[in-house]
Amino acid sequence: MTFIPKLTAASRSRDSIVCVGLDPEAELIPESLGRGPQAAVRFLRRIVRATSDYVCAYKPNLAFYERYGSAAMDVLTLTLQTIPDDIPVILDAKRGDVPNTAAAYASALFDSFRADAATVAPYVGLDSIEPFCSGGRYALVLARTSNPGAGDFQDLETGGRPLYERVVERCVARFPAESCGFVVGATYPDEAKRLRALAPDRLFLMPGVGTQGADVAIAIRAALDERGGGVLPSASRSVTYAARDSDFERAAAQAAKAFRDAANAAREQIAAGGMGGRSPLDS
Amino acid sequence: MTFIPKLTAASRSRDSIVCVGLDPEAELIPESLGRGPQAAVRFLRRIVRATSDYVCAYKPNLAFYERYGSAAMDVLTLTLQTIPDDIPVILDAKRGDVPNTAAAYASALFDSFRADAATVAPYVGLDSIEPFCSGGRYALVLARTSNPGAGDFQDLETGGRPLYERVVERCVARFPAESCGFVVGATYPDEAKRLRALAPDRLFLMPGVGTQGADVAIAIRAALDERGGGVLPSASRSVTYAARDSDFERAAAQAAKAFRDAANAAREQIAAGGMGGRSPLDS
Repeated sequence: MTFIPKLTAASRSRDSIVCVGLDPEAELIPESLGRGPQAAVRFLRRIVRATSDYVCAYKPNLAFYERYGSAAMDVLTLTLQTIPDDIPVILDAKRGDVPNTAAAYASALFDSFRADAATVAPYVGLDSIEPFCSGGRYALVLARTSNPGAGDFQDLETGGRPLYERVVERCVARFPAESCGFVVGATYPDEAKRLRALAPDRLFLMPGVGTQGADVAIAIRAALDERGGGVLPSASRSVTYAARDSDFERAAAQAAKAFRDAANAAREQIAAGGMGGRSPLDS
Repeated sequence: MTFIPKLTAASRSRDSIVCVGLDPEAELIPESLGRGPQAAVRFLRRIVRATSDYVCAYKPNLAFYERYGSAAMDVLTLTLQTIPDDIPVILDAKRGDVPNTAAAYASALFDSFRADAATVAPYVGLDSIEPFCSGGRYALVLARTSNPGAGDFQDLETGGRPLYERVVERCVARFPAESCGFVVGATYPDEAKRLRALAPDRLFLMPGVGTQGADVAIAIRAALDERGGGVLPSASRSVTYAARDSDFERAAAQAAKAFRDAANAAREQIAAGGMGGRSPLDS
């Protein structure tokens, strides 16, 4: 099953439009689980078990796995095995390279690690994005990132518009909605609103909820599509590291549930305001 | 020892300004070496032994390692162990992520895998580059990439200049020469020449020689700095896969030597034309 149908089904079955990042940060993992790669796997397995009723996608960021050096890919593989089959996995890798190399990255993410979708950086060009969104694959292209310095290059005006809009415009023209969406930081609702106008039928993965400071309701209000879908807010540390003591599973479950409920409440409020139906992410 | 002094020393001791990419492409490795991750390590060990007299840097691209899935990081670690200690390693990873995550990537590349330098993508912003070029680390920021689609976004005009010039301008203003250089495709000599004017004291890693079609002499002529240095042309497949039969080591050695000699001849020709001294890469 390709990404969008799988995401839609997971969203329906769990009544959730939220994604949780699964990032092993050694210094934040409860000490009671031990140290090293095995502790990371133990920790993430429990986080998945605690949160999987409340999310419609998981997003492991490869950076935090690569820090484990030789054990990196084992930690990733073992973590992925703990995720229920019907929940799609977005490998947050932000890769971008010349076509021959991009094809190798895409093969690594989608074939070796069985990603359902992957994040991709646009700077190298459209030919660098292509391997991530052809043949049934799905790419989430960086448009507006969630960091404070996002505007350094993304805001540069080109042809009367900021660069991040041109990225979206060109990707929309080149790649179909079933294989390409965008990363739009939840920390930048004004920019999200402008991008929604340019890409009415695209999924927006919206990281930055929680520790990075974004309010999920504001992000959803800015980016919801006409049918009341198209948004996938994502939180990482505020869920996975909600508590660092022995109670961490219960804390993560509560944080995931609160995140889901806040997202659903925001959608319902907008729907009640007359913004159309409340179908899930199936835009 | 930090990257630039190490590169300068290796360049002097081998009378070479060229870099070779070390990318295991399973379908191109001679069948006599077997298949799978172990064949990749065997192959790359022999390639390093055959070429290490002729290069001043090696550049493994992580994409080709990641395709080995769980074995990826072992293949990379074992390959890195075969590289002589005095030859610097550029990990070609083109990472770029929000600051907290960028710090994890930088730690993976420089601490877990002991890179001397790493390639970095600029789109996310200056705060995403910072962790790769602080504390003695060295970042090669993508400016002009070597692929056919490089211009899709890099050529967009912003403030009267193409985006790739703005990237170089801002990085030069923010990061010192001893910790930040640029990736400038050897396939785009005109662009390289414009960038040299903006970044007279920076190292340019110039991939795209060989299989991607760039002529090393033309690239060097376009990008050499005033002191006759500052360029690091790079070839990958045309050296490592120069022959695919049992003679592959001799073919790789010959290709690396020819690459080095062509680069040196181009520099000498320019020096003879009165372009200043012929000191190596110590710009």
